[in-house]
Amino acid sequence: MTLYFIGLGLGDEKDISVKGLDAIKKSELVFLESYTSLLGIKEKELEKFYNKKIILADRNLVEKEAEKILEPAKDKDVAFLVVGDPFGATTHTDLFLRAKEKGINVEIIHNASIMNAVGEVGLELYKYGKTTSIPYWEKNFEPETPYDVIKMNKANGLHTLCLLDIKADKERFMTVNEGLQILKKIEDKRKEKVITDNLLVIGVARIGQDNQVIKVGTIKELENFDFGGQLHSLIIPGKLQIVEEEALEIYKK
Amino acid sequence: MTLYFIGLGLGDEKDISVKGLDAIKKSELVFLESYTSLLGIKEKELEKFYNKKIILADRNLVEKEAEKILEPAKDKDVAFLVVGDPFGATTHTDLFLRAKEKGINVEIIHNASIMNAVGEVGLELYKYGKTTSIPYWEKNFEPETPYDVIKMNKANGLHTLCLLDIKADKERFMTVNEGLQILKKIEDKRKEKVITDNLLVIGVARIGQDNQVIKVGTIKELENFDFGGQLHSLIIPGKLQIVEEEALEIYKK
Repeated sequence: MTLYFIGLGLGDEKDISVKGLDAIKKSELVFLESYTSLLGIKEKELEKFYNKKIILADRNLVEKEAEKILEPAKDKDVAFLVVGDPFGATTHTDLFLRAKEKGINVEIIHNASIMNAVGEVGLELYKYGKTTSIPYWEKNFEPETPYDVIKMNKANGLHTLCLLDIKADKERFMTVNEGLQILKKIEDKRKEKVITDNLLVIGVARIGQDNQVIKVGTIKELENFDFGGQLHSLIIPGKLQIVEEEALEIYKK
Repeated sequence: MTLYFIGLGLGDEKDISVKGLDAIKKSELVFLESYTSLLGIKEKELEKFYNKKIILADRNLVEKEAEKILEPAKDKDVAFLVVGDPFGATTHTDLFLRAKEKGINVEIIHNASIMNAVGEVGLELYKYGKTTSIPYWEKNFEPETPYDVIKMNKANGLHTLCLLDIKADKERFMTVNEGLQILKKIEDKRKEKVITDNLLVIGVARIGQDNQVIKVGTIKELENFDFGGQLHSLIIPGKLQIVEEEALEIYKK
């Protein structure tokens, strides 16, 4: 009996791999991890496509009540679905380790995640430095980490992918505009000229979905641009090669 | 009419997405990019699975004779298949840009690539720094770049993914062992103690395939370890968090 970690990719029900779909069809229980990302469609549509009932797995279930996923996997095939790749932007390594400890057979079925699908904007993937995330600011929580990461990567000529905060339980998904505002607020404190109005940035929305948007411009140009619905990400380019510059031209219009 | 860039993922014919398979079925011409990576199966098996003839596209065809791909796409659906993700480890941005210039409708169907599938070893993807590649040394070509990248990433506490050279036309695929030997030869020149016998490294082979191997150990322990057939990659960990250490334990045995 196997616990399948299955990546769903980024778009809709048809971004799953043939192998992943086969595994779901075999599984008696199908969990959908529902707090780190989301597809462009509702789970009802997934249920219809799989012809299976889906159990939504929130953070509490996955982190505190993992037994509900692991126990059944001892004698049944169980599918644990993750938008993107199972080990993409947010890790499910802990669940994986617990399954291994219990001697459960685990199979991982990979898929695209935002970490590699951003290749589509035309910046070489191997020239990205450390990835960062921009969280919403809260009282006594105004982290400057993204600023430091962007600064470090820029100093090394590298691009930075900024993953924007997702509070799925509150249906809050950070927009490119909000991400830029937060970076500017950090700049106001730090004044190291890492984030300036004329800095060229790339905003992306719904990558891998039919209505995806990729838009290149200065912060001034993009800070009020409407990217539409979630999910958004932000890229701060480092040193550009000619073919990268050519690619970005497409998305300046 | 559309030129589809379709990622095949990393394993076998069933790692393609349902969407990608639909696009191939609609396409009148199906090219398989054959020089930057390879699946664990032969193209004959792909042809059988798709029920379509496959045209192998080597570097010359893609870079010098791209018209053979682009011209037909003006009035036919054409599929351009890439192992991994279309914009993964090696870029096909140039072909994409040429298609755009000609006003050809382009659709990209993403998939897993080595860049995100390495998440499976348990090191957080967002803590990787710049990716590097280790080329075979040739006369007057003994690049030290990978050494510099590893050094930079280590200094910043970041992990390094080293992509190992592929000379598909000569059927030469660098092994983890060869990659380690080259790093040691650079160390012999540079003597900066970046690469030492006791350095913990991770060798991976055939990630995403049924017979994948992930092995963690010091360079001394892994330099003669037999990882089996291609493709191999090498990871040099940076600073490890507890859950990362726990994950690596699994692969030390």
